[in-house]
Amino acid sequence: MRLGKIPKVTPSGLRINQSRLWETIHETCKWGAAHRWGEGPNDTGMARLTLNNEDARVRRWFADEVQKLGCTLAVDQMGNMFARQKGSLGSSRPMIAMGSHLDTQPRGGRYDGILGVVGALEVLRTMKESGFRTNYDVGIVNWTNEEGARFPKSMCSSCVWAGAIPIQAAWDLRDIQNNKVTLRSELERHGYLGDISCSHEAYPLGAHIELHIEQGPILEETGRSVGVVLGAQGYRWLKFTVTGKDAHTGTTPFSARKDPLLAASKMIVASNEIAKKHGALASTGILKIPDNSSTNTVASEVVFTLDIRHPDDAVVHAVEEECLRSFQAISTQDGKGVTLNWTVDTDSPAVKFHPDCTNSIKAAAEALVGKEGWMEMTSGAGHDSVYTSRHCPTAMIFVPCRDGVSHHPTEYCAPEDCALGAQVLLESVVNYDRALVERTEKQ
Amino acid sequence: MRLGKIPKVTPSGLRINQSRLWETIHETCKWGAAHRWGEGPNDTGMARLTLNNEDARVRRWFADEVQKLGCTLAVDQMGNMFARQKGSLGSSRPMIAMGSHLDTQPRGGRYDGILGVVGALEVLRTMKESGFRTNYDVGIVNWTNEEGARFPKSMCSSCVWAGAIPIQAAWDLRDIQNNKVTLRSELERHGYLGDISCSHEAYPLGAHIELHIEQGPILEETGRSVGVVLGAQGYRWLKFTVTGKDAHTGTTPFSARKDPLLAASKMIVASNEIAKKHGALASTGILKIPDNSSTNTVASEVVFTLDIRHPDDAVVHAVEEECLRSFQAISTQDGKGVTLNWTVDTDSPAVKFHPDCTNSIKAAAEALVGKEGWMEMTSGAGHDSVYTSRHCPTAMIFVPCRDGVSHHPTEYCAPEDCALGAQVLLESVVNYDRALVERTEKQ
Repeated sequence: MRLGKIPKVTPSGLRINQSRLWETIHETCKWGAAHRWGEGPNDTGMARLTLNNEDARVRRWFADEVQKLGCTLAVDQMGNMFARQKGSLGSSRPMIAMGSHLDTQPRGGRYDGILGVVGALEVLRTMKESGFRTNYDVGIVNWTNEEGARFPKSMCSSCVWAGAIPIQAAWDLRDIQNNKVTLRSELERHGYLGDISCSHEAYPLGAHIELHIEQGPILEETGRSVGVVLGAQGYRWLKFTVTGKDAHTGTTPFSARKDPLLAASKMIVASNEIAKKHGALASTGILKIPDNSSTNTVASEVVFTLDIRHPDDAVVHAVEEECLRSFQAISTQDGKGVTLNWTVDTDSPAVKFHPDCTNSIKAAAEALVGKEGWMEMTSGAGHDSVYTSRHCPTAMIFVPCRDGVSHHPTEYCAPEDCALGAQVLLESVVNYDRALVERTEKQ
Repeated sequence: MRLGKIPKVTPSGLRINQSRLWETIHETCKWGAAHRWGEGPNDTGMARLTLNNEDARVRRWFADEVQKLGCTLAVDQMGNMFARQKGSLGSSRPMIAMGSHLDTQPRGGRYDGILGVVGALEVLRTMKESGFRTNYDVGIVNWTNEEGARFPKSMCSSCVWAGAIPIQAAWDLRDIQNNKVTLRSELERHGYLGDISCSHEAYPLGAHIELHIEQGPILEETGRSVGVVLGAQGYRWLKFTVTGKDAHTGTTPFSARKDPLLAASKMIVASNEIAKKHGALASTGILKIPDNSSTNTVASEVVFTLDIRHPDDAVVHAVEEECLRSFQAISTQDGKGVTLNWTVDTDSPAVKFHPDCTNSIKAAAEALVGKEGWMEMTSGAGHDSVYTSRHCPTAMIFVPCRDGVSHHPTEYCAPEDCALGAQVLLESVVNYDRALVERTEKQ
């Protein structure tokens, strides 16, 4: 595996402090560390679910650190945190934001989201200690509930900010383990129900650049250090409820059964075959049967999720339609059949990022690692950048993660790659800020 | 649906009290009533799991009632309850037992097991009030944890009694919802860890006749009132653990995944096809993935059960072997494969009941309902009689249940059918007792 390396001379003359970045990442991971897999101090994963006590702790830490740098901090009604450093022009133009998230999957790692926020903090620290000021305001966003793991809506709060769902729908999301708790009740409990509207109008952004681990194997396999992300796959999340009837497994012939688990199994197998045929992805991450199931009783109901992805929205829709037709046919196939219901819980169309941002990143990557060191990519996962791209120029920077593993405790990004990613982020922001001055002067 | 009817003249001259039996069944169901499905006072199912507080209450009630009838009561170290009424001969020969169970499935009904015990109590009450005495001792057994729903081993305590598993293995069974609780700890908590060994040697039975609802649709569909059960299907319960690796669903290509839920789904579908081909049954009642699953993460592990049944043991084994070969092939099929492990949790070979018992029941059925009213059957489900048959003449009586439904709150057996079943039980015991006198005199 080729490790990233910041060259001796950087375009901006500024230099990310690799060890400070590394230490800060892992310092913050004491809040939510879980799932130990090795003996080293950092050899654990994370379980910092949105607005649990650990997430509240790291939010307070983040607020302290950005205020120490002289940033102003705004919190909106979804708990999104906007740290803002004034630029030298004193312009009121919306800030150039470096955004990502501090929440994790329940069995997540130490880099997904965290690198983007802590890397952005390192960018501001590096600028500050060198006395460097951008022309326009720059800053950091910590987006609430990006993972959608506790409150089941991923990129939840950038979605509200973009106006893609009403805030009430997001506030009403319930903790999947405890349906008495809502996202809003947790915002209130921790004091993160801010006083400004969550909206791109109330708090506009001038640009949004997100540093993130790749979460896939492509950079590692091709020996590149940096991915310039030109867009994101489209995806849709569906939830299926298959209803049958509980019955004794020894005395109920197949012909008399309504077996939802057999039907759901066939549906999962079918969805995989359909996705393969289209070169798409279709995955079932959650399958639930009633708690009182037993070995000799046919279950009464099965709920399962389906996550369909492809860079082309038309393919996502084709896979979905073919799955629905197939599932409906399966629901009548065995015994007395089952009842099928479904909802679409998330719809995230494919996205193309803005050339003003991707060009700033390309120039930074080219200057730092040369032609052989970076590549263009499409994101396989959803990110807050997908929603910010609806209302401001947006792009992303990917760095490699070991074996392409993420959403897993062993997720790992080498210190060198973290630092190089943060350096690309810094140079991209500087490039974007300068280009903005040039464009503004031309007008 | 043809309802059972006790003729005006019975062979023994005794007559089951239908309304007393009906009222007693439902009186006892106040302990554990759950899952209301209708408006009538008895329109609920049951959730009287082995040795929960409700099961302990109904056990105390049973002890009181049999002692009121003058029975002695013995409790063994598995909590099996043996109520014994002395016969007129004063013989020390082991009693002719009417046995079944008072525990239920978590979403069970009011008849499965309960009819066998309360029907047996009604037999003793009917004999007592008429001053009728059998020649040899007769009695009732309430077997502990027949369902295996809370402590996962069905027919658990008749199995120990028969010497088929060591008592320690049964004592160590853990509550499937709370692994801090064992069967033994619950026996101790409720005072049902008796002082006699649980063994067919310490407490032998002379015969075992069990009245039970059919739990299938055959009697109803053929218009019969009584099934004379000549044996039981063989069955084996397996538990499979499929281990993969959690990974992000958007960024991990199919080729890089180890997806245990996809593999388990294929296995469930395959087991169904294999069972159909053999004319057998194979059913998955439980499937579990880790609690921290999420829509956009491939699960790390899946555990599922498989229940294989057929009247011929050779077919059960053939289905199992074919499933294992198929599952092993499936475990290498997709992506980087998954790891497959399994245990055999229950092995219940096919059983043929004893002609001394089946003949006593046939004679009773023939006298009560005539040739068109009864039929020979094989039990589809396991019962405690399967284990008692290893050490004493055993057989079963089936009565119809509505739509063949059992292990479900709406399970229903009409009052007339309950009473006719109890009358067949009474006459069978009387027949068996008389035949025993005749055989003894001949010797």
